Amino acid sequence: MSQNDPDLSRASPPGLTHVLVERALGVSFDALPEDVRRIGRDCLVDWLACSFAAIDEPASRIAAEIAREEGGHPHATVLGHTWRTSMIQAALVNGTTSHALDYDDVNLTVPGHMSAAIIPALFALAEHRQASAAGFIAALVAGHEFACSVGKLVEPAHYANGFHATATIGALGASVACAHLLGLSQVQACHALGVAATQAAGLKVMFGSMAKPLHAGLAAQAGLRAALLAQKGFISRTDVLECEQGFASVHGSDFHQREALSTPANGFHIRNLLFKFHAACYSTHSTIEAVAALRQQHAIDVDAVKQIDVVAGEGCSICNIQSPKTGLEAKFSLRACAAFALLGIDTSDLEAWNRVTEAAVSAVLDRVKVELVPGMTLSDSVVTIRSKDGDEWTLAYDCGMPIADKAAQSARLFAKFRALATPALGAQRTAQLLAVLDGFLPDGRVAQLAEHCRIRCD
Amino acid sequence: MSQNDPDLSRASPPGLTHVLVERALGVSFDALPEDVRRIGRDCLVDWLACSFAAIDEPASRIAAEIAREEGGHPHATVLGHTWRTSMIQAALVNGTTSHALDYDDVNLTVPGHMSAAIIPALFALAEHRQASAAGFIAALVAGHEFACSVGKLVEPAHYANGFHATATIGALGASVACAHLLGLSQVQACHALGVAATQAAGLKVMFGSMAKPLHAGLAAQAGLRAALLAQKGFISRTDVLECEQGFASVHGSDFHQREALSTPANGFHIRNLLFKFHAACYSTHSTIEAVAALRQQHAIDVDAVKQIDVVAGEGCSICNIQSPKTGLEAKFSLRACAAFALLGIDTSDLEAWNRVTEAAVSAVLDRVKVELVPGMTLSDSVVTIRSKDGDEWTLAYDCGMPIADKAAQSARLFAKFRALATPALGAQRTAQLLAVLDGFLPDGRVAQLAEHCRIRCD
Repeated sequence: MSQNDPDLSRASPPGLTHVLVERALGVSFDALPEDVRRIGRDCLVDWLACSFAAIDEPASRIAAEIAREEGGHPHATVLGHTWRTSMIQAALVNGTTSHALDYDDVNLTVPGHMSAAIIPALFALAEHRQASAAGFIAALVAGHEFACSVGKLVEPAHYANGFHATATIGALGASVACAHLLGLSQVQACHALGVAATQAAGLKVMFGSMAKPLHAGLAAQAGLRAALLAQKGFISRTDVLECEQGFASVHGSDFHQREALSTPANGFHIRNLLFKFHAACYSTHSTIEAVAALRQQHAIDVDAVKQIDVVAGEGCSICNIQSPKTGLEAKFSLRACAAFALLGIDTSDLEAWNRVTEAAVSAVLDRVKVELVPGMTLSDSVVTIRSKDGDEWTLAYDCGMPIADKAAQSARLFAKFRALATPALGAQRTAQLLAVLDGFLPDGRVAQLAEHCRIRCD
Repeated sequence: MSQNDPDLSRASPPGLTHVLVERALGVSFDALPEDVRRIGRDCLVDWLACSFAAIDEPASRIAAEIAREEGGHPHATVLGHTWRTSMIQAALVNGTTSHALDYDDVNLTVPGHMSAAIIPALFALAEHRQASAAGFIAALVAGHEFACSVGKLVEPAHYANGFHATATIGALGASVACAHLLGLSQVQACHALGVAATQAAGLKVMFGSMAKPLHAGLAAQAGLRAALLAQKGFISRTDVLECEQGFASVHGSDFHQREALSTPANGFHIRNLLFKFHAACYSTHSTIEAVAALRQQHAIDVDAVKQIDVVAGEGCSICNIQSPKTGLEAKFSLRACAAFALLGIDTSDLEAWNRVTEAAVSAVLDRVKVELVPGMTLSDSVVTIRSKDGDEWTLAYDCGMPIADKAAQSARLFAKFRALATPALGAQRTAQLLAVLDGFLPDGRVAQLAEHCRIRCD
């Protein structure tokens, strides 16, 4: 649908902004299906896992240093630190931290990392305002669904034009999530969205620099501030999505109103969320998954393997280092990834990748053959394992598809949490935090969880 | 020059970003002409005047309330309050306050209110870091010139596409100004600019709402934070203006590199700054100026005037209320404006406009005839005053032209300060502040000035 489509109800009340905001504010925990609640909780698990692994990343360290120098009332926890600061500052630091490793969840509908933008805002707000776990999850789902609707509205032009959707649409999602948690009225929430939309910035050219994770922190901060301002009567405008020279038209050329208003086939955008389980280039993930699945399904013994054939898309030349010598190179080597998976090495563990120089890894690596072919996407892989006895097992995997078994997804995220948090927090604190997260729903409190996150990571 | 002009040196070092940042960092107080130093100081005078008049504006009040609730180390003064807060918070609140009445200076090259974006950032930074007046003025001029160069680069498309340049280019100018004050290296300053550019947001559709002044505060905050981050080693990229999908290309379609690199004919963009001297619609200003000038030049006695003819552009229908009944209506009435000017009423005073109902004003107002004609701009006016004795005096005025006599401009800004600050601060404190401002150059300290601004406005 183009901007000139006569079907559009730009400026005719109730406009798109009102309808989408109303829908978001209408999300209630009681009405959420069990699996959606669980996914919401799992977003939090993943967000914390990625954050604890990134406390020492330069972007996180610098953001925290400045927050500390600025000071603020001790209202909100800064992950991995023992001090607290104002909500808005905590949102910025924690958002930056959680996206610093680019290991956090992604929704291709946006496309972007909505948890990294929404959760830092909500987490700070919910801690200070003593929100319940149920209130937190409902607000998170509301913000996530809203952000995905905006993604439907403005993509793919928005992203193609150079905007980093995590930063821009993330701010919008965070504002609506916070408006939900604060119980803002419909009109207040629209004003909050307007304030967030007029702060929506972030250039895709910053990828590869510290500014990329900062985008997530800034989006969280912008969304939270917008909701706080609106609660006190701050006025922007209530039709920012659809108005002439509003968010959609200034930040791109797409305006797919019908798609924005539609509900996804499976009911919730958050069901399509993709989590990362391997601390390697995203284009290696399907190969890792396929090898691991074949190994498990057929109880394959490493020594019995004669050859592993990996067929992937041409685009995977970015992750096809033949003879990786370092952990970083291994993360961009389909051969190393296949070898790690066959050996059962935990590829979610950031440190495990240094094992690439071990003899056992080299021995398997020599048996991996990679073929890159046209017509396959970056998330596709077909793996064939041939045994010395003449057995041959083949599996195709597409990590661009959400995991269907959400309970299994939870289990994997808890394992990811353990792998990522343990080096920073130690085994005991990690176990305590996991227990709190396990019991978070339905009756937990965010402040109690946050207390467990006020840990000095050295 | 189009983006495809072969003359462009996009990506070829040293690129545009480097050249412009280097030029900005090279600004030194000692090398600045006397009148440019004075204009810099006058920006500060005007900025404070507009701020003290706006402490009670809702946008300012709400921003200050949130800053107070958040807390922060008492590093920087919040204008019109007795408490201090962190630099970044003070920049946001003061920036919002200073633009709340839309009474602050404007540079049509951007086009936007650069002082409202740059000074709040510099003022907070300079107070906390104990900067000298000379250091402050040099940084302000550096930021202003840089911002105008960016304006030359990306306008008119940037503004036409829906971006509020005060918000976007303002953040860039603020980052460079703060980089100058902090003494950042060339590379650090480029990274600071990158961080500011990736935060550069602000929709023009917010005009008429509280979000408009908030834009100035956000720009100040973004620029200041960017410089603080870069000082600690934060990395973005060093070619954000010209790189593919960088600031210029994502936020518009214009890329006038040659114009951006050129120096204005009179040497400094800041010499083209326009100050507002009347608390009325901008399109009435030339009429006020023309009447006031004729009155003074010819010592015209009000009772001797038979008729005042005002000829202005068709666009001035927005400010042609025939029989204004309130102060607000008077601000949009060319007839009332002409009457006020003839009576010598101080039109810089926000409260003076309520005098429109006085008999003396009505008596003159009845004698004003307005004719709106095609072909004249919003800033043009031709006024003819006819006396009962048959005298006839005519003057054309264009308030879109900078005032040539900069010393006279200073005197008018000091008068504006007195008119705007006195209701908030009282006569004594206003006089004290004016004395400090008068002695600010060359040896003042920003912290000392800030101390005089920590006043509770009730």
